[in-house]
Amino acid sequence: MAVREDRVEELARRRGFLWQAYEIYGGTAGFYDYGPLGARLKRQLEAEWRLFYSLEGFFEIESPTIAPAAVFRASGHLNCFSDLAVVCSRCDSFFRVDDEIVAGGKCPECGGELAGAGEFNLMFQTRIGVPKGKEGANRGEGYLRPETAQGMFVNFQRLLRFNRGKLPFGVIQLGKAYRNEISPRQSLIRLREFTMAEVEVFVDPDEKDSHPGFDTVRDRRIWLNPAEGEECETSVGDAVRSGIIANEYLGYHIAKVKEFLERIGIPSDRLRFRQHRKDEMAHYARDCWDAEFMSRRYGWMEIVGIADRGDYDLAAHATYSKVDMGVHTHTQTQTHSKMIPHVIEPSYGLDRIIYAIMESAFTEEQVGKETRKVLRLIPELAPVKAAVFPLLNREELKQKAKSVFQSLKQELVYVDYDDSGSIGRRYRRQDEIGTPYCVTIDYQTLEDDTVTIRDRDTMEQHRVRIDDLSAAILAGIRNLHV
Amino acid sequence: MAVREDRVEELARRRGFLWQAYEIYGGTAGFYDYGPLGARLKRQLEAEWRLFYSLEGFFEIESPTIAPAAVFRASGHLNCFSDLAVVCSRCDSFFRVDDEIVAGGKCPECGGELAGAGEFNLMFQTRIGVPKGKEGANRGEGYLRPETAQGMFVNFQRLLRFNRGKLPFGVIQLGKAYRNEISPRQSLIRLREFTMAEVEVFVDPDEKDSHPGFDTVRDRRIWLNPAEGEECETSVGDAVRSGIIANEYLGYHIAKVKEFLERIGIPSDRLRFRQHRKDEMAHYARDCWDAEFMSRRYGWMEIVGIADRGDYDLAAHATYSKVDMGVHTHTQTQTHSKMIPHVIEPSYGLDRIIYAIMESAFTEEQVGKETRKVLRLIPELAPVKAAVFPLLNREELKQKAKSVFQSLKQELVYVDYDDSGSIGRRYRRQDEIGTPYCVTIDYQTLEDDTVTIRDRDTMEQHRVRIDDLSAAILAGIRNLHV
Repeated sequence: MAVREDRVEELARRRGFLWQAYEIYGGTAGFYDYGPLGARLKRQLEAEWRLFYSLEGFFEIESPTIAPAAVFRASGHLNCFSDLAVVCSRCDSFFRVDDEIVAGGKCPECGGELAGAGEFNLMFQTRIGVPKGKEGANRGEGYLRPETAQGMFVNFQRLLRFNRGKLPFGVIQLGKAYRNEISPRQSLIRLREFTMAEVEVFVDPDEKDSHPGFDTVRDRRIWLNPAEGEECETSVGDAVRSGIIANEYLGYHIAKVKEFLERIGIPSDRLRFRQHRKDEMAHYARDCWDAEFMSRRYGWMEIVGIADRGDYDLAAHATYSKVDMGVHTHTQTQTHSKMIPHVIEPSYGLDRIIYAIMESAFTEEQVGKETRKVLRLIPELAPVKAAVFPLLNREELKQKAKSVFQSLKQELVYVDYDDSGSIGRRYRRQDEIGTPYCVTIDYQTLEDDTVTIRDRDTMEQHRVRIDDLSAAILAGIRNLHV
Repeated sequence: MAVREDRVEELARRRGFLWQAYEIYGGTAGFYDYGPLGARLKRQLEAEWRLFYSLEGFFEIESPTIAPAAVFRASGHLNCFSDLAVVCSRCDSFFRVDDEIVAGGKCPECGGELAGAGEFNLMFQTRIGVPKGKEGANRGEGYLRPETAQGMFVNFQRLLRFNRGKLPFGVIQLGKAYRNEISPRQSLIRLREFTMAEVEVFVDPDEKDSHPGFDTVRDRRIWLNPAEGEECETSVGDAVRSGIIANEYLGYHIAKVKEFLERIGIPSDRLRFRQHRKDEMAHYARDCWDAEFMSRRYGWMEIVGIADRGDYDLAAHATYSKVDMGVHTHTQTQTHSKMIPHVIEPSYGLDRIIYAIMESAFTEEQVGKETRKVLRLIPELAPVKAAVFPLLNREELKQKAKSVFQSLKQELVYVDYDDSGSIGRRYRRQDEIGTPYCVTIDYQTLEDDTVTIRDRDTMEQHRVRIDDLSAAILAGIRNLHV
């Protein structure tokens, strides 16, 4: 059922999922607000993600978003994290070279001639503290992090100690990251401030080829688009055996990314894994696969990157900080040699994933003469779990409905009450925001304390006792996150 | 049981709750990392807070941390949000005037003479995008938000529409905020990057004196330190009636703040509410009460501020943006007059609250000849819900313990396994991080599938069937948050 894609963004804005930030001041490109429904969806997505990787045994940390220049001098971001820009000779606007809009060689704003304008580092710069004294111009130089990963790397020795000195272990972090894009488009797809959910798996390089859980993913099918060779659908096991995917750790985590994306409602036939070509790889990566979502509006778009960062980051911080990042190898020979662990990094862009979830969930169906818009979110992510309606706008029904609403709210937290407009209109309002269950109080309720529950997807209704109501709704929700 | 307070910070650092950030580069004052245990505690605290205010019917949003200068020109932060500094004439170090360390008039670093150095704005400045053209020096001027509140104010009309045009309503936001402190101390107490949890309640100014839920808090006792008059313990109802607290909305939210702080484990005898004097009030506030925690180390410290911001912010954004922030009053006369809502704002500093929680929870007890360190966290906040031990380091016990651990992990997520050292030492490790339950597998387990559960606080043990284990543990935890 094809849909016009801008309707997803129109719905998101109109119903309070998300919209461009600072609208009252004309809007600021690259910044978005999550409204009441969007923020709930995002919180629940974050909780699903955290649960998924916590069950892997990984532990979360939270490090600052501002870092001193030393961190990014070591990580390479001060030297390497930049885009080429062009500038319009007539209106002085800047554009990123690889944007399609400047492919024509003319300024997309005024039609003027474009000229090269050099490289721009994509980090937001700031100053920490008061500049000290005359020679202190560079004292306090700081940046907003372009990824959460560095917070895990600079803390590696503490995290290793927390894990009692043993490899492998995984660390996760969810939080804001920042890229000062030269010319962001007006959408969620390229933001200057965004939320990342990153996993850093630290592993002995000699053990990358044997992941202890690999058997659990070996037979899963994935659609691969390798840097060299044909696009193919294959099993994870075959892809590693044939060398398309370099090692079991990378293969295991590609499979877990796919499992997570499917779990949150992204259909597998709109997902593929595309390997970076050498010339597009980030400066820290020795191999990288993007999980790409086929958007009806934007085409293939990256939503997760799974990189093999090798020992790049730990070695760099060891060099710059003079702090040892080595780990004793556990060999039979009892020689105390040390090695720098390698890092496998699945890195999720949550804002784009929210777009992918909403586009995947949005459908329009003909019901009689009407078009029904439904957001088929998985119940775990639905911003409202249930809506309670009095069938008619009568005091005795409203009173009963409000009391059912109040008691349901104590258990499910995110519950709506609505008594305005026809019942059909109220259903449509809830369908559009993805509410899985609508509960209606009618005259029979006043007699026998039963209500109807309507299922969003099938539109079928059945009666349940009020005492069984929350259990009936919870039966359809695997995890209830606040 | 008095404790030496620095032991709380020592424990926090040693066990992986939190530590100063960027240690490998010498540390950066005003920035902290939350390690694996601290990040879990913080996630769960955030979830408890979100649940508490969601049950009030308030809705959450998430707005960016970077804002264009226009927002802070309107809000007054560009003009008013600054501290007076002094500079040392010998070593060029800067200090905040009201820090006790500079009260002596000498530089605390080198003993040199201090001289006035003017006012410094406390916002972190940055630039959004590439500076455009020769005259564009101020284009793209942006700041990191010093509070999350402005994100709610600039979106007021959208949020009002989401609430179908009706007042009152409440909006919450949790997230990072930033203050470029001139000379932060080396602790959690004054951070440059910190997490706030803010509530903005928008209310018709004519209705501030009648909060619909006031009866539920009227009789609660609070300890007040008003700007004028004596410190006193009184009921919320009496404080409002006598005018010490200006209106019911303010009184209601002061009571809710106290309820929340007690719920998360801060004892009420270490809490008071202190009213700001006129000369210490923020530029936007017409009244403000701080919830203060009596720290054994730092003395009285602010952990929540409850401000009546009046119509300051909405009126200011209406003026600067030329966007109408008025709301139609619902009067009997059907005249379509408009008013600007007032804002009551409980604003929580989560990092300081985490310090207060840990200090409140930390105890040392004599058990025989030993000192037992226990972190008496409420179970909802404990980073680890249960730890599973084999009684002895024997293969058959370890195997069974690992299987119990794995199945418990599926239900409780945050579960530890430990088979290293004596059982007494393993208990002590868990007591110190606040794990409410320890589960031990012994030889009887192999016979009858029962285990012992030990309670952290009473140290009492009892046997339960493995099938009943997770239910027994969950019975002691009100909300399980991921």
